[in-house]
Amino acid sequence: MSRKIWVFDTTLRDGEQVPGAKLNLYEKLEVAHQLKKLKVDIIEAGFPASSEGDFNAVKEIAKQVGNTNDITITALARAVKADIDAVYHSVKHAENPLIHMVLGTSDIHVEKKFSKSKSQILDIGVEAVKYAKTLLPDIQYSTEDASRSDFEYLWSTIEAVVKAGATMINVPDTVGFAEPEQFGELIYKLNDRLKNLDDSVLLSVHCHNDLGMATANTLAAVKNGADKVECTINGIGERAGNAALEEVVMAINTRSDVFNVHTDIDAKEIMNTSRIVSSLMGLEVQVNKAITGDNAFAHSSGIHQDGLLKSRDAYEIIRPEDVGLDDMELVLTARSGRHAVKDALRKLGFSQLNEEQFESIFTEFIALADKKKEVYNHDLYVIVKNYFATNNIESVDVNNYADSFYELIDLQVISNTTFPSASVRMKKGTEEINSSAVGTGPIDALYTAILKVVDTDIKLLEYKISSVSRGKEALGKVKVIAEFNGVTYNANATDTDVIKASALAYVNVVNKIVVENLLPVK
Amino acid sequence: MSRKIWVFDTTLRDGEQVPGAKLNLYEKLEVAHQLKKLKVDIIEAGFPASSEGDFNAVKEIAKQVGNTNDITITALARAVKADIDAVYHSVKHAENPLIHMVLGTSDIHVEKKFSKSKSQILDIGVEAVKYAKTLLPDIQYSTEDASRSDFEYLWSTIEAVVKAGATMINVPDTVGFAEPEQFGELIYKLNDRLKNLDDSVLLSVHCHNDLGMATANTLAAVKNGADKVECTINGIGERAGNAALEEVVMAINTRSDVFNVHTDIDAKEIMNTSRIVSSLMGLEVQVNKAITGDNAFAHSSGIHQDGLLKSRDAYEIIRPEDVGLDDMELVLTARSGRHAVKDALRKLGFSQLNEEQFESIFTEFIALADKKKEVYNHDLYVIVKNYFATNNIESVDVNNYADSFYELIDLQVISNTTFPSASVRMKKGTEEINSSAVGTGPIDALYTAILKVVDTDIKLLEYKISSVSRGKEALGKVKVIAEFNGVTYNANATDTDVIKASALAYVNVVNKIVVENLLPVK
Repeated sequence: MSRKIWVFDTTLRDGEQVPGAKLNLYEKLEVAHQLKKLKVDIIEAGFPASSEGDFNAVKEIAKQVGNTNDITITALARAVKADIDAVYHSVKHAENPLIHMVLGTSDIHVEKKFSKSKSQILDIGVEAVKYAKTLLPDIQYSTEDASRSDFEYLWSTIEAVVKAGATMINVPDTVGFAEPEQFGELIYKLNDRLKNLDDSVLLSVHCHNDLGMATANTLAAVKNGADKVECTINGIGERAGNAALEEVVMAINTRSDVFNVHTDIDAKEIMNTSRIVSSLMGLEVQVNKAITGDNAFAHSSGIHQDGLLKSRDAYEIIRPEDVGLDDMELVLTARSGRHAVKDALRKLGFSQLNEEQFESIFTEFIALADKKKEVYNHDLYVIVKNYFATNNIESVDVNNYADSFYELIDLQVISNTTFPSASVRMKKGTEEINSSAVGTGPIDALYTAILKVVDTDIKLLEYKISSVSRGKEALGKVKVIAEFNGVTYNANATDTDVIKASALAYVNVVNKIVVENLLPVK
Repeated sequence: MSRKIWVFDTTLRDGEQVPGAKLNLYEKLEVAHQLKKLKVDIIEAGFPASSEGDFNAVKEIAKQVGNTNDITITALARAVKADIDAVYHSVKHAENPLIHMVLGTSDIHVEKKFSKSKSQILDIGVEAVKYAKTLLPDIQYSTEDASRSDFEYLWSTIEAVVKAGATMINVPDTVGFAEPEQFGELIYKLNDRLKNLDDSVLLSVHCHNDLGMATANTLAAVKNGADKVECTINGIGERAGNAALEEVVMAINTRSDVFNVHTDIDAKEIMNTSRIVSSLMGLEVQVNKAITGDNAFAHSSGIHQDGLLKSRDAYEIIRPEDVGLDDMELVLTARSGRHAVKDALRKLGFSQLNEEQFESIFTEFIALADKKKEVYNHDLYVIVKNYFATNNIESVDVNNYADSFYELIDLQVISNTTFPSASVRMKKGTEEINSSAVGTGPIDALYTAILKVVDTDIKLLEYKISSVSRGKEALGKVKVIAEFNGVTYNANATDTDVIKASALAYVNVVNKIVVENLLPVK
């Protein structure tokens, strides 16, 4: 059996420090419950001395999530009595409570931040551990800014606090300054001395991402003896954030040949956890974020799509299913080659096209992709149908399912503070349908109006809008995830008007549901 | 003088493969001009065989940006004549044209993707180089999926193509599978043999970020002899993207003690380049993205803000000015401590508050921060003014500047496809002002209406909206960057209604401009 790496999640403490990401009690509880499902070993639930709200949130998480023996609940304290008391009184309700305290060890922190001597700081740390030890048996001590600290002072601090009763030593790269090879050497040396001193003490690392190397530094530490990693979901946290849990865990899983360790994380819960944290904190995940980004498993270039269709492992080292995604996605764009388009047509049931027919359809596809950026199966379907119609070709493949698709003709949405409302004009086949609705906000009104037209039991799971632009050239991108019959579907749309983009994305997801559920062939 | 590392930017090729990120000719030229300002050594401008549009874009970049001797223009080809011809005919207009071709070397690519033997593939590569060499002197050969290739086959490919005339060898970690220590060893061995074979050939790496280690792998290669790095701005690219140029460059600059190399990159152009790429491609940068994320230099926790105010280097390893940002930002949130709030009050001119007055104001601040998430200087100003007013305290510090701030009272925005319009009711001091406007879209109409009220020469530079939410609990976040008197200002706002959030962010930036320009003290 390989060595176990403990996973300490600090999404609710370091992650919640992201400006604007503050959660309320119920949201924090929801994240904590999900982290438990993900099977993290330790949840750092907050910084209870900072506010009464934080104290209560830690307490409720300790009670409601920390009520079983398979998880530890902790919270952060500075090395002062009041902070330690706040942690103790909030985490003590858990089955496995842990006090986590932090105190700087680098010259910059000791001398400039605290204006004290090194021996004074060391004494403060030791006294704090001794005090905490009177409250709880499990104490983690973090040597803040360890990667920039004098090694011998760092070690004498660790030695002293372990002798005072600390049961976990955490080595933070507080400012994201470390480089993997050097950081690995530091951990190797510390681990060597620590295990000689007391081999029951866990050695932990906490890496920040200021130079983009938090994951690599964390993994270098694991290779060199670290027993425990501190991470956040999606890598959120102070400044450039922390090591991303999903990256560390999936690197360990994917490269077991290199690391030869394991975690207890249930990787299939990774995407769920990422989505919950992202939507509750309102922090969008960059589309190309490793593992949890929208495009992490999306292949768009013709070369890659062709390669994938021949052999998935040509461009895929992690199966999307392993992290809880339904399947890899070949997004059809102007860069997609013939192989990918042919494959999509085959799945729609058009497998009998001759070379000339296919080339004509492919040309239409490229023209549409240039305009629309992303092409969906219902778009392809309409292209094929139009092609057969205009060329008077009868095909056994063609039927009238194209009449099942919805098209947005016009819309009007009124946003105000009292009575937001929306009207849409849509087309289904040749039939035109109008609808209006009021809502809690403009998007809610708009989606309610569209849903009245569609009249099917579709549940909106996630709505995501982003627009980055200079001045008035705004290009809004909307992604919608919806549920129908227990299956989730997603679709995007882009338009210079964010409201129209919202409408189009919803219509796209509706048509996707139509394709998957009403067409005879898959 | 330390060794120079060549920077090869592939934002316009690998980066543009991101679904939905396709640029038109003018946008591509703008990015290319900015990359030249950033002083990259080589621009990969596209994949000319994929479409006529791509071919023309590469040609225009070669003509208009490649017209000086300090930059090389290249484009991608598969190892087939038609692709190589397309590259040649598009890049030949540059002063320094380079042909870049790619062919797999791993068993998976050779056997499954191409269904050929290794020696057949090697021959195809050699013949392609020989053909390209009849067109241009400079040829880069990429051994696709090199990190999963058999070492001796990889080396025999490199040896053969160098003998055939390749002048740069690029070693891609195509699927983001590499681990820094192993990848460093691979590069060390290849570099050793390559420099013995022909020391004029540049060794390059191209790392993908599927396991979150693209930057660390790139830097491990640099430590082990690589001469050149392939990167993209903001780390965009196929799937989880590529090594981020800004991370690689700033790690080299910040950790010169470890790497002892340099690039020619003008780091002060990093933020500009990031913003241009992000806004033209419509790809939002995650707030905690290293170097270029909105929060990369923002400090929000009380502990960190206190430490920074005592000594910047306690929590800052890169000065924001070095990458072209105006200054570090202490964002005032509910997590901010007394030290940061006191500092902000001092900058507003309130330096004579006694302990009791400060505590009362701090309590008000915390209450507002809990509601608003981010507190601006104008908010603080209003808190102080109200405090003095309700307590009948006369203070030399207080004046009537608070009457210069704007407040949004109500709004109505109508989005439709023909005639978007907006009306706002605002308050300035005690005066109520109404205004209406039409626009090209709902946000344009809204901002025009607000600007009519403010009646000041404010130019909107960037508008960014993001909302990630489940179902109807949408929480929209808007960031606005605006220019006044040649200085840029930014502000955020959050609301469940994305339209209202847009209005509030604009009002916040207007008030920020008022604070900085109308108040007497800084």
